[in-house]
Amino acid sequence: MFETPPDAAAIQAAAARIAPHIRRTPVLRLNGAELGLPGRLVLKLETLQASGSFKARGAFNRLLSQPVPAAGVVAASGGNHGAAVAYAARALGHRAEIFCPAATPAAKADRITAYGARLHRIGAAYDEARVASEAHAAESGALQVHAYDQAEVLAGQGTLGMELWQDAPQATHVLVATGGGGLIGGIAAWYAGRNTEVISVEPEACPTLHQALAAGRPVPAPVGGLAADSLGARQVGGLMFQLAQRHVAQAVLVPDAAIAAAQKLLWSALRVVAEPGGATALAALACGAFVPPPGAVVAVVICGGNTDPAAVAG
Amino acid sequence: MFETPPDAAAIQAAAARIAPHIRRTPVLRLNGAELGLPGRLVLKLETLQASGSFKARGAFNRLLSQPVPAAGVVAASGGNHGAAVAYAARALGHRAEIFCPAATPAAKADRITAYGARLHRIGAAYDEARVASEAHAAESGALQVHAYDQAEVLAGQGTLGMELWQDAPQATHVLVATGGGGLIGGIAAWYAGRNTEVISVEPEACPTLHQALAAGRPVPAPVGGLAADSLGARQVGGLMFQLAQRHVAQAVLVPDAAIAAAQKLLWSALRVVAEPGGATALAALACGAFVPPPGAVVAVVICGGNTDPAAVAG
Repeated sequence: MFETPPDAAAIQAAAARIAPHIRRTPVLRLNGAELGLPGRLVLKLETLQASGSFKARGAFNRLLSQPVPAAGVVAASGGNHGAAVAYAARALGHRAEIFCPAATPAAKADRITAYGARLHRIGAAYDEARVASEAHAAESGALQVHAYDQAEVLAGQGTLGMELWQDAPQATHVLVATGGGGLIGGIAAWYAGRNTEVISVEPEACPTLHQALAAGRPVPAPVGGLAADSLGARQVGGLMFQLAQRHVAQAVLVPDAAIAAAQKLLWSALRVVAEPGGATALAALACGAFVPPPGAVVAVVICGGNTDPAAVAG
Repeated sequence: MFETPPDAAAIQAAAARIAPHIRRTPVLRLNGAELGLPGRLVLKLETLQASGSFKARGAFNRLLSQPVPAAGVVAASGGNHGAAVAYAARALGHRAEIFCPAATPAAKADRITAYGARLHRIGAAYDEARVASEAHAAESGALQVHAYDQAEVLAGQGTLGMELWQDAPQATHVLVATGGGGLIGGIAAWYAGRNTEVISVEPEACPTLHQALAAGRPVPAPVGGLAADSLGARQVGGLMFQLAQRHVAQAVLVPDAAIAAAQKLLWSALRVVAEPGGATALAALACGAFVPPPGAVVAVVICGGNTDPAAVAG
């Protein structure tokens, strides 16, 4: 099946489809100086989303767009996508089988089982779990919900971009963490042709989009570091890459130390608990990997909060 | 000095005065069913406020309304008010001396000193720290910033009510935790004459407003339980009591177990870390102490997040 990336109309349709099930997460406007950062800031607080990350958007859009067989749904995930698919499947009355690698932390694995899904632990990192989930789908006939490389999933994640554009039209830049690229792909699809730069932020230890843009195509990249459970796809999706080449202005990298510092900053200044992947976009501002031009209004997506809250204190 | 309680005009003036310094905190709209609760919900996420609680509103309004002497400012507090006064004093370039009882938890004491104030630990509960702070003010000439019983403080806290009314005009009820009563007093002053019921929620172990309304005047009440550090005033203020008699529709009580359960619910369903006092208003819905009528839209103020985040997990 050849898919094409979603456009703004597909994202609007997704927003209408998933509205009864997801939360319209609020934004918080700040002077960057309050956080010791440059510029004016708009934080999109997606930690408040159902299932604890943006992934619920894409999961619901996929499950509401396709007939779901009696065998239910299957997904591979570092954790957040699995939790979202489990949450959506429960809400819609389907069975869910979720394949996670050993690296998936307890905060995410516990959500998956608490939402009633069956959890399979396979392999060391996401990509091995993905291979196993595809085998399961072929055998069982269950509907696959890809973590990032399906048009319906990208359109669902793009609804975050639509909300942000509606609530903060003055944003000149949007910082988004990239793993497999579903979130930034959907957001870039929304902002295509609008006067706002979408900027990718990745850990130095998981530089999937950075390397893909350098190579001119998705290529395997290293997987490691603090945010590997949420940003540790082996390579970006083909659909998002088409969007990224045209509509992502920059792809910057941040060290793990900056991610940990951004997590602590979110807690100390805002009482927001973000997981490492959820704090990665802010880290680019805090460590100077992205320096906003004078007058910029920088929107930052705080995209997930599924972590042990004790990790952010102190 | 005889003071009169603030009205809506005083709250509007306070809002303009403090706007450069405080955050307009967002609301999150939910179907109660997502949390296993009745009705439609609007959560006012005041955990995002500067200093970690609503107290920054009243502190800034007081400091911006009065000349501050070279001796600076002084406050007594269970912790949140002290942190807010320390934050405001630092922002405005004043010295701050904060008197806290032994019951003030580390999460609050650490904020007070991190914001550059001098912390004095006096007595077992708030009321003893209050007496010591008043003696210090008399000796030093420092400006007192009362935790709840000053018109400027009440007007500052009332700005939360104004924002909530602007952002959620459809709310039929507003649930607010009460300690000394500054927050609910300010909110009740805003909603006076509007078609929304303001409802007080207190721990059974700190029933200050409940007992005052029964007695017809502020009276000393027990101080204890899980939320004593934020809701453990010995009695409500005289100014707020005038407002509460006229404009608070009900004063309900909740057990500590319901407060702890509401904290865990906020974390598990929303990834929001609230301190016990910050979760107390929601506890009234969760335990049935307040049962919304059919069709109700219930606004709930999540008023503070200064706690060890590890306490909300599991």
